[in-house]
Amino acid sequence: MKKDVSQVVVRRMPRYYRYLGQLLEDNVERISSERLSEIMNVTASQIRQDFNNFGCFGQQGYGYNVKFLRDEIGKVLGLDKTHNMIIIGSGNLGRALASHGAFHKQGFIVTAMFDIDKKLSGTKINDIEIRSMDELEGFIKKNRVDIAAITVPAEVAQELADRLVSLGVKALWNFAQLDLEVDSDVIVQNVLLSDSLMRLSLNMTRKRVLDDND
Amino acid sequence: MKKDVSQVVVRRMPRYYRYLGQLLEDNVERISSERLSEIMNVTASQIRQDFNNFGCFGQQGYGYNVKFLRDEIGKVLGLDKTHNMIIIGSGNLGRALASHGAFHKQGFIVTAMFDIDKKLSGTKINDIEIRSMDELEGFIKKNRVDIAAITVPAEVAQELADRLVSLGVKALWNFAQLDLEVDSDVIVQNVLLSDSLMRLSLNMTRKRVLDDND
Repeated sequence: MKKDVSQVVVRRMPRYYRYLGQLLEDNVERISSERLSEIMNVTASQIRQDFNNFGCFGQQGYGYNVKFLRDEIGKVLGLDKTHNMIIIGSGNLGRALASHGAFHKQGFIVTAMFDIDKKLSGTKINDIEIRSMDELEGFIKKNRVDIAAITVPAEVAQELADRLVSLGVKALWNFAQLDLEVDSDVIVQNVLLSDSLMRLSLNMTRKRVLDDND
Repeated sequence: MKKDVSQVVVRRMPRYYRYLGQLLEDNVERISSERLSEIMNVTASQIRQDFNNFGCFGQQGYGYNVKFLRDEIGKVLGLDKTHNMIIIGSGNLGRALASHGAFHKQGFIVTAMFDIDKKLSGTKINDIEIRSMDELEGFIKKNRVDIAAITVPAEVAQELADRLVSLGVKALWNFAQLDLEVDSDVIVQNVLLSDSLMRLSLNMTRKRVLDDND
């Protein structure tokens, strides 16, 4: 296995998983990389290269077995295991994550939420209890926590990340609008809404410029 | 101006904007690409290449003027104009977007929310009125809408996108877990939470494999 799979390839893998799931639902049993390429609007050679990073999923000339391929990509994505996740911050974003049905189906189990506002302690969102931040240390010591989702304001996010990492949490799903600084053995995945909106706006602006030049 | 700026470069631009904003707050007036490279953990040549896609922002030997550079990147990002945005779906995610203070500061003005649940009509979130879906056509005809944020369930998202596009909306910020099919003159920016969580999980799984092989 190569060590240096680029994050560009990583970005594409969930999309394959999604499309293969749709094919399975449509009772498609086998698919050629050419056909998959048409559906997904990626070149067939790109698909083969992407998969080659993770092993061999298909048979030359016979196409891919959709269920096998999806299961293998699922393993690459770590979906053959369950992940326990806590959510820090029970604002609208934290609530949206706690209420998101798809995560549970994919083995991401939200085991607790935490909020600075003690008045919320003991209340539940989607059957998940909100706890006080004072309980964070105790909870993480007693329960396996694989992922912590950070939905607190940017000003307190680094401090929170340090606290989580010192408690042994190795994966942070960060929604706070900053780049967290963590040890190299901690994995951070960002969902930065402002950055995303600016990318949309950049693409709109460029399109306008390109249209004007046409 | 080159036509083919890759989305990898596009992804990086908001991050430059964010870091330069921080430098401005810290009263830094000039910065070399080498120093910027240290702070941002990107090579200096990468920075110069990225900026070259959009024009010339700096002076050899003198470094970059931070304010000028930030303003220029702001223009690339389209932040020198305001964008009117509507949000479709007033669930937790829609509410999170409506309550996000940073968007307004960057010129993204949420002008209305829409929801299928008529009982919510007339209520407000962060001073933004929730309207019935029946009002969508009338609203878009009367008001400039630059961006529509889609926070409805995936099953109805394509239909909604078609409706928005037929009304002339040219930019969709899509939170529904699917790839929307739209005309090539419509810009779609996705925030797919499940995909993001799977990427985190993939990186966790690979790290485990790499650690085991070390």
